[in-house]
Formats: sequence, C-alpha cells, structure tokens
Amino acid sequence: MRAMKHTVGILGGGQLARMLAEAAHRLGISVTVFTARADDPAAQVTTRHILGSMSDRQALQQFLASVDVVVFESEFFDTALLADAAHDRNVRFAPSLDAIRQLQDKLTQKELLDRLGIATATHLIPRKDESIDDFVSRALDALGGAAVLKWARLGYDGKGVLIVDGSDASRMEARAFASAANEKNVPLFAERRIDFVRELAVVATRSTRGEFIAYPLVISEQQRSICKLVTGPATALGVSAELEHQAHDAARALAGALDYTGTFAIEFFETREGALLVNEIAPRVHNSGHYTQDACATSQFENHWRAVLGMPLGNVQPRHGFAMLNLLGPEGIERANDDVQPPFPSKRGHVHWYGKSRIVPWRKLGHVNGCTDAVSQLDGLVAELREIERAWSDRVRGERE
Amino acid sequence: MRAMKHTVGILGGGQLARMLAEAAHRLGISVTVFTARADDPAAQVTTRHILGSMSDRQALQQFLASVDVVVFESEFFDTALLADAAHDRNVRFAPSLDAIRQLQDKLTQKELLDRLGIATATHLIPRKDESIDDFVSRALDALGGAAVLKWARLGYDGKGVLIVDGSDASRMEARAFASAANEKNVPLFAERRIDFVRELAVVATRSTRGEFIAYPLVISEQQRSICKLVTGPATALGVSAELEHQAHDAARALAGALDYTGTFAIEFFETREGALLVNEIAPRVHNSGHYTQDACATSQFENHWRAVLGMPLGNVQPRHGFAMLNLLGPEGIERANDDVQPPFPSKRGHVHWYGKSRIVPWRKLGHVNGCTDAVSQLDGLVAELREIERAWSDRVRGERE
Repeated sequence: MRAMKHTVGILGGGQLARMLAEAAHRLGISVTVFTARADDPAAQVTTRHILGSMSDRQALQQFLASVDVVVFESEFFDTALLADAAHDRNVRFAPSLDAIRQLQDKLTQKELLDRLGIATATHLIPRKDESIDDFVSRALDALGGAAVLKWARLGYDGKGVLIVDGSDASRMEARAFASAANEKNVPLFAERRIDFVRELAVVATRSTRGEFIAYPLVISEQQRSICKLVTGPATALGVSAELEHQAHDAARALAGALDYTGTFAIEFFETREGALLVNEIAPRVHNSGHYTQDACATSQFENHWRAVLGMPLGNVQPRHGFAMLNLLGPEGIERANDDVQPPFPSKRGHVHWYGKSRIVPWRKLGHVNGCTDAVSQLDGLVAELREIERAWSDRVRGERE
Repeated sequence: MRAMKHTVGILGGGQLARMLAEAAHRLGISVTVFTARADDPAAQVTTRHILGSMSDRQALQQFLASVDVVVFESEFFDTALLADAAHDRNVRFAPSLDAIRQLQDKLTQKELLDRLGIATATHLIPRKDESIDDFVSRALDALGGAAVLKWARLGYDGKGVLIVDGSDASRMEARAFASAANEKNVPLFAERRIDFVRELAVVATRSTRGEFIAYPLVISEQQRSICKLVTGPATALGVSAELEHQAHDAARALAGALDYTGTFAIEFFETREGALLVNEIAPRVHNSGHYTQDACATSQFENHWRAVLGMPLGNVQPRHGFAMLNLLGPEGIERANDDVQPPFPSKRGHVHWYGKSRIVPWRKLGHVNGCTDAVSQLDGLVAELREIERAWSDRVRGERE
C-alpha cells in the first residue's frame, strides 16, 4: 500500500502562517494558505494559496476540498461555519474545532480553567438586561475597586480590553466599549484588576500521540498592551522554579482535558503574593514563543507540525539566556513596505521580517531574536536588539516619503 | 533620500538556492530565482522565478533586468555569457564574476593556491598533443605510482574524477574519461593520489565590508564520492587545533586575495603525516556547511546574505557536538516525490527536505541535522540520524509503486 501524503492547509496568511509555512517546507510538507490577499506574509513564501475572507463560505469550501489537515494561525474563525463547510469532506482540524471553540471564548476558557482547578482572575458577567453603568458599579464593588472589562471573543494586542474605575470619563469609555462589543455580537465580562509583579508565558505542544513537551517559562513585557520583549528562561531571571512547575502542570492538564493537538500558549500574571494566575490562552503558535526559533533546538513552529502529523516532538532545550524583541511600526510613519529596507541584523541579533504590505505605527512588522551563553550577558543582548530597532527606525525616518 | 531596496536574484533553483531563499525571507529580502523548471526546489518556496537553462542568453537577460544583486548556487555558469548578458545593466554579482572564474576551474584554483603558499596535491597537466595513454604513464611515474585524473571544470560529487593505475582496465577507463572531457571541452589534469587519514572541510564568509568569519573545521565522510556525514567540531574529535588554525588562515588568505564576497567552502585532506592539503574550493554555500542551520547561531545561508548586502556577519559559535547526515535516494527506488512521504524527524534529528521532483538512487534529497551538548553523545546522535534514514527508506520500499 502506498502511504497517503498529507496535503496541509493553514487558515490565515499573516506572520504566524508565514513562519508555520517555512517550518513546513523544511520538513518537506506541502502547504496551501487560506488568506485574504495574494501579498499577505504567508502567501509570499508559498506557491499555493486560496484567497477569501474568514466568512467566505465558498472560498473556505474550495480550500477544505484541497487539503486533508488544517491548522490555524488565529482562533477567530467561525467554528460552526468551518464544521459546515467541511461537512462530508475528509478533513482533520488540528487542534479540533471543539478545542478552538472552548478557547476562543474567554468565558468558556475560564469555566474550563475553573474545572481544572487552574487559578485565574476572579470575574463577573452582566445580568440579563443590566445596563453597562450598573454592571460597572457592581463590578467595582465586587472586584475590589478596580476592574478590567473584556470582550469574551475577538480581543488581541489590547483590543477588547478596558480598565475601568468609577470616574465619569471611565464610564463614558465603558459605554463606548460595550456598544462596540454589542455591534460585534460579543459578550463582555469584568475581571479583577491584578496587581502583578510581571507577566509570564509558556508555550507547549501536545501531539496526536499524546506526547507533551513544554518550553521554558519566559518573562513577557508589553508596550501599549502589545508584546514587546520576551526574555528567558524565567527561572534564570529571578522567577522561582516552583512557578515554572505550576505553569507546565497547567499546560499539561489543559492540553489533556481538550485532547489538544499542536502548539499553544498560556499567558500568566505573577501576583505580588507570588501566585500564578492565568491571563489568557491562545490555541496556536504565539508571539511569546518566537524566541524558540533561535534559542531552542526545535521551534514552536516545527513542533506544531510534528504534533499535528504524528511525528515525535523535537528537543526544546533552550540556550542559557535569550531575548526576543518585537519590531513595531514607528510612530508617525506610514509607508509601503516595498519602499523600505528591512532592519539590519547584528552579530547576535537575528531579524525575522514579515514582509507586511504596509509599515503602520504599532503594527507588528517583525522580530529580532538573540541568545547568550550566560544570563549575565542578557542586558547587553537586549540593548543590542534595541539598537537594531533604533537604527532601523532612524533610517526610515530619514528617508523622504 | 530614499534608500534603494535591493532586488536580489539567485542563479540556480536546487536545494542550495532553496535554503538561500528561506534565509532571505527571514531577513525580509525579496528574491527572484533563475532555474530550469517551475517545480525545482527553490521555485517551490518563492513566488518569483524566471525559467531558463544556464546557457539561455535571453532568459538570463530577462533575469538580470529584474534584479540588482545576483548570487550563485553553482559555480558552473558561463561567466563570459553572464558578463555579456549583464552588459549595460546595473547588476552586481556576489561573489564577483572574476572570483567565480578563478575558482570554477581547478587549474586556476591550484595556481592561486600556489601563489598564496597554500598546500595542495601535486599535479601535472597534459602536454600539447600528448595521448591520454602517454599522459597516464607519465603521471603514474611522476606522481608516485597512483594518480587521480580530474576534469578542470564541471566536476561534482565524484563526477569528473577517476583514479588510475597502470592496468589495462584502468587505461580503458582513462580513455573514456578523457573523451568525455573532450566532448565537454573541459581540460583534464592528473593529481597525486593522497593517502589521507580523513577529509576535513571549513566554511567561511567574507563581507563586502571585508569582515571575515570562519566556521569550525569539520570532518566529512563520503560514500561513492558523495558527501554523506559531517561531524564536528573537528577539534573535539581528535583533529589538532593547529590544523583548524591552518584551515582558517587558508580561508582568510584566499578570500582576501579574491576580494571575495559571501560564503565559500574549502575541502581538505588530512595526510598520514598530519599535513593539511586543499582538495577543492567551492565559491558558494556548501554541503559541508549544512550543519550550521541547527548547530550555529547563524547559518552559512544567512551569513551569505549578510555578507552580500553589507550587513554585520552573524555569530557562528557552534554547539559542543553536531552532525549532518545526507539523505540520498535509496538504491533501486525511483519514484515521484509527490507520491512519497518525507522522512520523519526524531527528538534530536531535524529534517531538511528539498522537495525534488523525483526520488532517484543516490540523489541528494535532503539532510538531517542534530546537536549535542557533549561530544561523548555524538555517536548516539549519529545513530539516531541514521535511524531516520533507515526508517524512511524501509517505508518507501514497503510502499507499492
């Protein structure tokens, strides 16, 4: 009998899909990308793509007819539409649509975490017909005077998150926030505002064979709620090994409960009291795991494919110290990417550029990874990575439009 | 002033071009590939390619009109044709056509090495109108009773190399070898047959700024004159540090003398007397440097682009032990690649599959890289890499055609 050769599809064509496609190429896996535009980051490095929007049933059907395994770059696909479009076809989604469904909604995420006994911030949901003003008042009372409103779905990079207090200005913002959620037909909820020491994250992978590996716990720093800097291993940077154990246990329990296939990420708060609280879960490769491309024997992208296709998972052993700096569009600059030279790498800094069609302020345009053999050199390394970004943005600013 | 964004072309579309293209993508460099077929390894991972043969002047002109920097995956291009096709165009070749010209011919290579005082095997060239029989007799006399006939150009993977002795069978082979060279219009010469302990190799990179880096000296083992296994660092495997110094000095002197730009490789013999003799030089990224993808902070492919585009060269520090095993087409199997699943990676073994259109015996189809933190684990690692190959070839044999 001849073995079936898999034809694999990626839902999405942004930078995560691009890096997934590159890892697939190395393994000899042919990929088809489903994306909106032919110049999207992943479409530039693959010869097969099907163009369509997330809600374009006909394009999705065409895509699903051309592949037998589908992976996700984003959790924002409509799982009911996908199930329907895949009806009667021999297509496997990895992770399963059920796992995506449970994780794409922060409220079902929290229910799952509660069931598994994994700590997360206390939350509150609006009562039927409760006004946003009343809900905010109740939330501030119940959650200790400081609360965060969140959309249950479609939030990312600070979108769908609003810190509220009792002031008039804050109430105005809350009304706008609630009506935007309403327009998108997304429920909202309130969460206790966590007084955290730092944010931590872990990326892990579970295979169709049930094999599980977890990458080291890392420290992640945000700028305007967008991931900016990831450093690690956290345990070499003052975070207790006990917290890493807790993070790995949470990842293992979660993956097992969902019969999860592939790579996923959990973001945590480390509280002043030294506790670990889950902030959120992403059922896909994740920005907090980009460092794995240069710092670990096997990247999160390669392990995603290994997991999905039933191959043994790869060694994840990291270097002694590592850092990843996101390259965000500089303030005040908007220009076609084709008119701009990408950043120059440095001796220890490795540029990963996404080839987005436009340079736009605060947009994720690429990242830089670096490693050291001693944690004591990490500050110097981070300075070197920041210098790559500074030199590039100076260069772009200096060029006439 | 707006900076010129480079449009970069690769002459060739095989596995070296594919891995160069992937490294370019990460750096945000757009590449156009010049190759024979749309399903060649590099064309599968790029959206822009121009199809043509090495001697197709019109296609070459079209290619050269679309790029401003050109790199090579092979040294077998006709430099006069390229110079002519590039005439009047603002195209930079990296390395220069002059460097390619000097290195693509093994006789001019030897002259250069002699000038630089770098040791190489003694050689002899045929006299005008000397018959191949007379030449072989003279070579066996002059070179100590054992000689190797070589084509001065177009040799690779054992092609263009013939070991001769005084027997009738050997003289028959020598006549066929000489007439094949004659048909290709390639001069031949004879070289002393070296009684070597092992073969060593080094990959190095020199940038347009004159910056130079050398990767560690490695041990390379051939099977049927095709590179099969590379292990290193050689100095951790019983090769003296003095030989590594000599290899690095030779690479530096050679690159300086040619005002060389980019990555190149030197293959050496380590003689029984402990001397280092240059076997040959390749003016391009090289099979003996594929291990750098997983074992070094910066791969030979990325450093090639950094060098060519005037960026700082990347850190080349290797892991404590590493190995690269070439995946060659199994004997007796010929099949379309599309009908065959690629090899599965292992925990420590990273598969790099080239996506060649056909599986053919002894063809280079991919390679597997692995690293260890202790040289003592290297034998186990090599066994793990060999097991990947064995499991794959068993699987392919077991499938019906």
